[in-house]
Amino acid sequence: MAKSSVGRIGIYPGSFDPVTFGHIDLIDRALLLFDHLIVAVAENISKTPLFTAEERRDMIVESLDLLKQTSARDRLEVVIFGGLLAQFAIDRGATAILRGLRAVSDFEFELQMALTNRTLAKDVEAVFLMPNAKYIYLSSSTIKDVARHGGDVSKFVPAFVAKRLQDRFAK
Amino acid sequence: MAKSSVGRIGIYPGSFDPVTFGHIDLIDRALLLFDHLIVAVAENISKTPLFTAEERRDMIVESLDLLKQTSARDRLEVVIFGGLLAQFAIDRGATAILRGLRAVSDFEFELQMALTNRTLAKDVEAVFLMPNAKYIYLSSSTIKDVARHGGDVSKFVPAFVAKRLQDRFAK
Amino acid sequence: MAKSSVGRIGIYPGSFDPVTFGHIDLIDRALLLFDHLIVAVAENISKTPLFTAEERRDMIVESLDLLKQTSARDRLEVVIFGGLLAQFAIDRGATAILRGLRAVSDFEFELQMALTNRTLAKDVEAVFLMPNAKYIYLSSSTIKDVARHGGDVSKFVPAFVAKRLQDRFAK
Amino acid sequence: MAKSSVGRIGIYPGSFDPVTFGHIDLIDRALLLFDHLIVAVAENISKTPLFTAEERRDMIVESLDLLKQTSARDRLEVVIFGGLLAQFAIDRGATAILRGLRAVSDFEFELQMALTNRTLAKDVEAVFLMPNAKYIYLSSSTIKDVARHGGDVSKFVPAFVAKRLQDRFAK
Amino acid sequence: MAKSSVGRIGIYPGSFDPVTFGHIDLIDRALLLFDHLIVAVAENISKTPLFTAEERRDMIVESLDLLKQTSARDRLEVVIFGGLLAQFAIDRGATAILRGLRAVSDFEFELQMALTNRTLAKDVEAVFLMPNAKYIYLSSSTIKDVARHGGDVSKFVPAFVAKRLQDRFAK
Amino acid sequence: MAKSSVGRIGIYPGSFDPVTFGHIDLIDRALLLFDHLIVAVAENISKTPLFTAEERRDMIVESLDLLKQTSARDRLEVVIFGGLLAQFAIDRGATAILRGLRAVSDFEFELQMALTNRTLAKDVEAVFLMPNAKYIYLSSSTIKDVARHGGDVSKFVPAFVAKRLQDRFAK
Repeated sequence: MAKSSVGRIGIYPGSFDPVTFGHIDLIDRALLLFDHLIVAVAENISKTPLFTAEERRDMIVESLDLLKQTSARDRLEVVIFGGLLAQFAIDRGATAILRGLRAVSDFEFELQMALTNRTLAKDVEAVFLMPNAKYIYLSSSTIKDVARHGGDVSKFVPAFVAKRLQDRFAK
Repeated sequence: MAKSSVGRIGIYPGSFDPVTFGHIDLIDRALLLFDHLIVAVAENISKTPLFTAEERRDMIVESLDLLKQTSARDRLEVVIFGGLLAQFAIDRGATAILRGLRAVSDFEFELQMALTNRTLAKDVEAVFLMPNAKYIYLSSSTIKDVARHGGDVSKFVPAFVAKRLQDRFAK
Repeated sequence: MAKSSVGRIGIYPGSFDPVTFGHIDLIDRALLLFDHLIVAVAENISKTPLFTAEERRDMIVESLDLLKQTSARDRLEVVIFGGLLAQFAIDRGATAILRGLRAVSDFEFELQMALTNRTLAKDVEAVFLMPNAKYIYLSSSTIKDVARHGGDVSKFVPAFVAKRLQDRFAK
Repeated sequence: MAKSSVGRIGIYPGSFDPVTFGHIDLIDRALLLFDHLIVAVAENISKTPLFTAEERRDMIVESLDLLKQTSARDRLEVVIFGGLLAQFAIDRGATAILRGLRAVSDFEFELQMALTNRTLAKDVEAVFLMPNAKYIYLSSSTIKDVARHGGDVSKFVPAFVAKRLQDRFAK
Repeated sequence: MAKSSVGRIGIYPGSFDPVTFGHIDLIDRALLLFDHLIVAVAENISKTPLFTAEERRDMIVESLDLLKQTSARDRLEVVIFGGLLAQFAIDRGATAILRGLRAVSDFEFELQMALTNRTLAKDVEAVFLMPNAKYIYLSSSTIKDVARHGGDVSKFVPAFVAKRLQDRFAK
Repeated sequence: MAKSSVGRIGIYPGSFDPVTFGHIDLIDRALLLFDHLIVAVAENISKTPLFTAEERRDMIVESLDLLKQTSARDRLEVVIFGGLLAQFAIDRGATAILRGLRAVSDFEFELQMALTNRTLAKDVEAVFLMPNAKYIYLSSSTIKDVARHGGDVSKFVPAFVAKRLQDRFAK
C-alpha cells in the first residue's frame, strides 16, 4: 500500500520564523493524510532569520501541545535540515512534500519550487493544503513587523511565541 | 490510523468532458496518497457538456489502462454523482477532496470551492496536486475547441477519446 | 465640504442574487464612510438571475435588520436601477461607487469597470472595501450551487434567504 | 532571413465585436514588427456576437484610416477565418500569431492558447504586444455593455462604430 | 454622523521615497472622501530609503501645490510616524486607512496588511482607491531606477523631485 | 520597411546570472522575429550577482553553440550595458525590447517596466515571447539555490554552466 513499514511519510518544510497558528493548523491537517509527518526547519534561508534554527525548531515542538490531534504526537517529528530539500525527501523515503497555499503570489512560487523539486526527486509528490480561512492571509513577516512596533500578536501566534517576540524586540 | 478499514479515501471530482492526459496523470499521483480513490463525474455541470455523464465515465474507465500504476486498478472507482459534493464526500467517508492546480485563475476558484466545502463537510480535507508540467495548461475546453475545428488532439487525450471527439464534431 | 446638504453619497451596486452575509457586512462598513448609502440592485444582468429584481431588492431590505449600525437605517436606501451605472451615479449626485474586493479575479474586473465608469462619470470616485475575512471567498453563485443540490446555506445567508433558496429549488 | 519573399508574416486573430481603439493601437504596433499583417476575424466564437463576421471585418477595414502608419495599408489584410487558427497560420506561412496583453486574466488564457497552438503549429511563434496604457483595461464586452445602456462610447471606439452600436441597441 | 467634530479622518500611509504624481493624484481623490486627511510617512521601512523621513515629508508638503483641490490644504496634514500603523490610526481617531490599488501583486499584499490591521484596530476601515489610469503602473522603485541611470523622470514626479533625484545620484 | 539597413533590431536584456536553457530557447525564438538580436547583460542589478557581468556574458556566448539556428550566429551580439535600457535601445536603433513571459508575477513586473520604458523611448516596442512549456517555471534564482545545496542542475543549464556553479559553491 504505502512505501515502507511506517506508511506514508510527509515532509512539511519551512523557515517557521516563528511558527504561527497557521502552521499549527496545517500540521493538524497534514496528520490526516500522512502516517508520519516530518516538520523540516530550513537552516539556511535567504533572509536573515530573527530566530536561530534551534530556536525555531524548539518553538514548533512547544506548539505541538496546541494540536487538535493530541494522540498524533508520536507520528510527528520536528527536525532542522541544511541541504537540498529534494535530497532530504529522498533520504527520508518521503511520499510527498507538503505546503500551505494562501495567496496567488504564494501559489506561483510554490509551483516553481514544486516543479524544480520534481525534476530532482521524481518520486516525491507535491501536495498543497489550505489553511483555515481565518489564517489565510497570516505570514511570519507581517507578524514580526507588528511585534517589532510593539503591537499585540497574540491572535496570530501561541502565547509563548508572542512573549519571545516581545523579548527579542525589547533588546 | 485512517478513518476506516479501507484506509484513506480520496475523491477526485470533475466534469471530465472529456478526460485528458492531465486527468490521467493526476489520478496516477493521487493513487500514491490514497488507499482508495473515487473519480467522481459530475452529472450536472453549469455548461452543457459535450458528452453525457455515462459517456464521460466510460471514457475515464477506458483510460485507466494508461495508468503507470497498473496494479492500482482495484483501489480505484469511477462513479457518477448528482448531488452536493460535500455530502457525497461525507457519505463515502472520504479523507479528502482532491483537485489539480494549474493556473492562477484555477487557484482562486478552487480556494473558493474548498472553503465552501469545508463549511459543509468540516472533516473532509482539500488537497491539491500539481500535474506534470507538460499538462499544466491543458484544459478540456481548449481541446474541444481544437477538435471542433478539425485539429489533431492526439497529444492531449488518449487515441480513442480523440476518435470520439472527431466523430462527435463530424455530425 | 461635501457635495450636497445630505453630505457624501455612496452607491453600492450589484446583482445581489441573493444577498449574502458578505453584502450585509459591506453595507455596515460603507455606512461609516458615507452619509447616505444607496444599495442599487441591477435590473438587467448578463446571467439570468434566480430572483427578480423586486425579490432581490426585498431580500436586501429585509436583511437590514441584521446591520450592526441599527440607527443607520434612515441613511440607507435600496433601489432597483435599469440603465447605465455611471449615469445613475451622476443623477444621484454620488461621491463614489463602492465595491467589495475579494479575490484577484474580482480585482481585475473591478479595475476595468472602475476605469470605464471614470471615463463616463469623471467626478464619481471608485472606492473598494474589504469584507470580513470569513466572507472573503463567499459568492452568490457558489451559494446557489450549494442550495440547488440541497446543501445547507445558513452560514452564508440570512435564515429567510436560505428558506427562499430552498423553496425555489424545491420547485 | 525571413520565411518567404514577402518577409515576416504576422497574424492578429480576434473576435473584434466590435473593433476598439485598443485593437487599432495594436495593429499600428504590429506593423513595426511584421512585413505583412493579417487581421483575422474569427467567424465562430463561443459567445453569440453582436455583429456578423462580415460586419466585424468591415468595421476593421473602415478603421484603418485611423492608423498612424498611413503608408502601411498595403502591408495589411483583413480576413474572416472559420477553422483552426493554428492551421490557418501554417497555411498562410505565418512567422507568428500575435495578441495584446492587458490584464492577468488575459495573460493566463493567452498562455494556454499559445501553448496549445504551439503543439499544433510548432514553427509559428506566439508574440505578445502591449497596448497603449490608456487602452489597457478596454474590452469589447464592457463597451457593448455601456452602449446597451445608452452610454457614450466615443472615447473607446471610432465614431462610426459608436453610431453602429447606438443603432443596434436602438432596435 | 462622523466620529468626531472634525468629521471623517483618513490616513494615507506610505514610504513616499519619493512622492510621485500617482501619490498626489490619490491625495486629491482621498480629499473627496475624508474631512481630514493625514498623509503618514513611515519612518522605518524594510528597504533602506533613498531619502530621510524628513526629506520625504518635505517633498510631499512641497507637492501639495499641485493638488487640484487647492482649497483643501487646511484639511490636510503630512506627518512622520514611527510605530505601529494600527495604533497610530486609533490614536488619531481615524475612520479609515487608505491605500492605492495598482497591480495584482499590490492587491494581495494590501489585503494581507488590511486584514492584519483590522485585527489590531477593529474600528478602522480599510479603503482602497484607484489612481488615474496613466499612473497605474508607476512605482517609486522604478522611478529611482530610471533616475539612477540618468533617465528623465519628469513625467513621473514633480520637477523639484526630479531635480532632487538627479542631485542624489550625481553624488 | 525596417528602420535601418540591417533590418529589425531586437534587444533581449537581463541579468543572466547565469544563463539557463530557458534563455537559450528564447534567443532561438527571437531570431525568427529580428534581423539582428542584441543580448544585453545588465551590469548593475539590484541583487548582488553570483557572477561578474563579464562571466555572465561569456557564459551566454559559450551557450550559443546550443542554438537550433546554427547559421544565425552572425545576426547575434552579446554585450554588457551599464546605463538606462531605454537609452541603450534608442542608441542602438532598436525596434523592440524583448522579454520572456513565464508566471503572473513576471507579467506584472514586465508590464510596469514596459510602460516605463515606453515613456522614455516611445518608438521602441515591447515584445513578449513565451518560452518552451518545459522551461516555463525555470529561474536563475531557483537554479542557484539548488546548486548551492549540492543539487544537480544539469537539466536546467548547459553542462559547463553547471560546472561553474558547482565550482563557485565549492569555495
